[in-house]
Amino acid sequence: MKKSTLIIDRLIEQIDNKTSPIVVGLDPLIQQIPDFIKQQALKDFGNNLQGVAEAFFLFNKGLLEEIHTLVPAVKLQMACYELYGSWGIEVFHRTVELARQFGLIVIDDSKRNDIGSTAKLYAMNHLGNAPLIEGEDKTEKADFLTINPYLGSDTIDPFIEVCKQCDKGLFILARTSNPSAGEYQEAIVNKTPLYQKIAEDIQTISLGFEASRNFSPIGAVVGATWPEETEKLRKIMPNVYFLMPGYGAQGATSDQVVTAFNEKGYGAIINSSRGIIFAYQSSKYQSQFPSQEKYAQASAQAVKNMRDDLLRSLSQAGKLPENW
Amino acid sequence: MKKSTLIIDRLIEQIDNKTSPIVVGLDPLIQQIPDFIKQQALKDFGNNLQGVAEAFFLFNKGLLEEIHTLVPAVKLQMACYELYGSWGIEVFHRTVELARQFGLIVIDDSKRNDIGSTAKLYAMNHLGNAPLIEGEDKTEKADFLTINPYLGSDTIDPFIEVCKQCDKGLFILARTSNPSAGEYQEAIVNKTPLYQKIAEDIQTISLGFEASRNFSPIGAVVGATWPEETEKLRKIMPNVYFLMPGYGAQGATSDQVVTAFNEKGYGAIINSSRGIIFAYQSSKYQSQFPSQEKYAQASAQAVKNMRDDLLRSLSQAGKLPENW
Repeated sequence: MKKSTLIIDRLIEQIDNKTSPIVVGLDPLIQQIPDFIKQQALKDFGNNLQGVAEAFFLFNKGLLEEIHTLVPAVKLQMACYELYGSWGIEVFHRTVELARQFGLIVIDDSKRNDIGSTAKLYAMNHLGNAPLIEGEDKTEKADFLTINPYLGSDTIDPFIEVCKQCDKGLFILARTSNPSAGEYQEAIVNKTPLYQKIAEDIQTISLGFEASRNFSPIGAVVGATWPEETEKLRKIMPNVYFLMPGYGAQGATSDQVVTAFNEKGYGAIINSSRGIIFAYQSSKYQSQFPSQEKYAQASAQAVKNMRDDLLRSLSQAGKLPENW
Repeated sequence: MKKSTLIIDRLIEQIDNKTSPIVVGLDPLIQQIPDFIKQQALKDFGNNLQGVAEAFFLFNKGLLEEIHTLVPAVKLQMACYELYGSWGIEVFHRTVELARQFGLIVIDDSKRNDIGSTAKLYAMNHLGNAPLIEGEDKTEKADFLTINPYLGSDTIDPFIEVCKQCDKGLFILARTSNPSAGEYQEAIVNKTPLYQKIAEDIQTISLGFEASRNFSPIGAVVGATWPEETEKLRKIMPNVYFLMPGYGAQGATSDQVVTAFNEKGYGAIINSSRGIIFAYQSSKYQSQFPSQEKYAQASAQAVKNMRDDLLRSLSQAGKLPENW
């Protein structure tokens, strides 16, 4: 098997291998972790930050074992992990490593940014290597990072540089999925809404990469909850992969997300977090998986259902990729 | 001494006590840490993430011992710490605790945000308490947090709630200090540049607090590098404290920052990071403090010079607070 040149090629390869444009969000919340895992962590580590972090690791491990054959990628919401301090960060890295071992592409959803010199530190942390007293640290990082563009292009550049050096990718916030997304994102720059102006800038950045599959490693976050905006953004960014939150728990349907795919059926990876990882709590799956110990199987079933749902909509729109 | 009701009152009290509207940025970079500290950390912890994090702690401790009588507050740039993984996070918290013991107000400069449910996790992490398997963690957090407003007001609300519950404050990015700040921040909403619209929204939020000293705990980040914009923002946000980066290393002068203060000489706290903490490397201080072991004294001298500089400009503008 030839080694693809860019991380985006390897993501697309994985999407083709699994015939599944799905990313599962490993976004654990202690309140929703199955009791048997909480009791195990409580016994082994105590009722403290470490106990919660280790409960997350057990939970993630169970999920990864079941879903790694079904999806190309996982996304880790950093807020869930950093809430548990140094223990949380340690489990974040251990989860990234385990997902890698399962052959998955990993998206670090941290939405970082700051002024240029600080942006560089964030880029080194999340995608590159930290300088040590002598030389640099070699901890493996995630493959993609989400970033916030509000501070301007000179704060995006350091991330692009590190992507080029380390063969990593980004998903830059263009249009978010939350209800008040439009408040500031629809401000006008030269007669264009800001989220579209940012999309134009992401497209321009993308053209600076030699992309073997038409897409660059610099992607965009496009909320699935705004189908009309998605259609416009697809046209503005033909060479940009979309990371789409908003399907499922946030209310977007498969028919709404198909607008994000190009006519060949590529260009978007649809995220679901709570709808998948906490499927065991949903009445939809409880009769089939009544035991909490089968939480990961319930999640696997939820992934299969999501895939069926997406592939049906892609097919109806005449966008199912060839050979799937 | 009466206990003030809000964190912003205690910040202003500290500013008055020290007659100094200065916040020092504890933003360590391993390349610029004095050699004797690096060698100590290397010997005790090794050439690894922990070694760097512990070098940062020694460096910060030395600085805090010298500067705590001179400034009301310190700001910790999270990017510097999280670059060193779980060790960095641990040293971040230890530095926050030590600064507290020295009676300082602490600003956590993490510029976090995400959609509402995730914003709540960030708020709990940086200002509140993390839920455990049973009950919640009681780690002391910083007093103020910087956040990014780009995602919209429903992503700011969770932070406001936690501020009200836990007596904490925010500095919301309005106008940043970097060269390309205007690119997106000057997009137009109802004939108003976005950064001014955000300022209007911050002012509205501020009116929801009972402020004993005219200012609410919800502040704004306003880059000192844009004096004309600062003047407009001062008028739009009469009840909002400004956290101003950009003085010194980034090029803003004391005459430029005085526009941020109201006619009574309040309303802004001026940050300097590299110009203070790495003063020992500057030719300006090397003749007085030729030994690296005196790095913290060089920093204290740099703080005194900055204070003289600011007070001179405030005085010239007729804005020196009464009784200073």
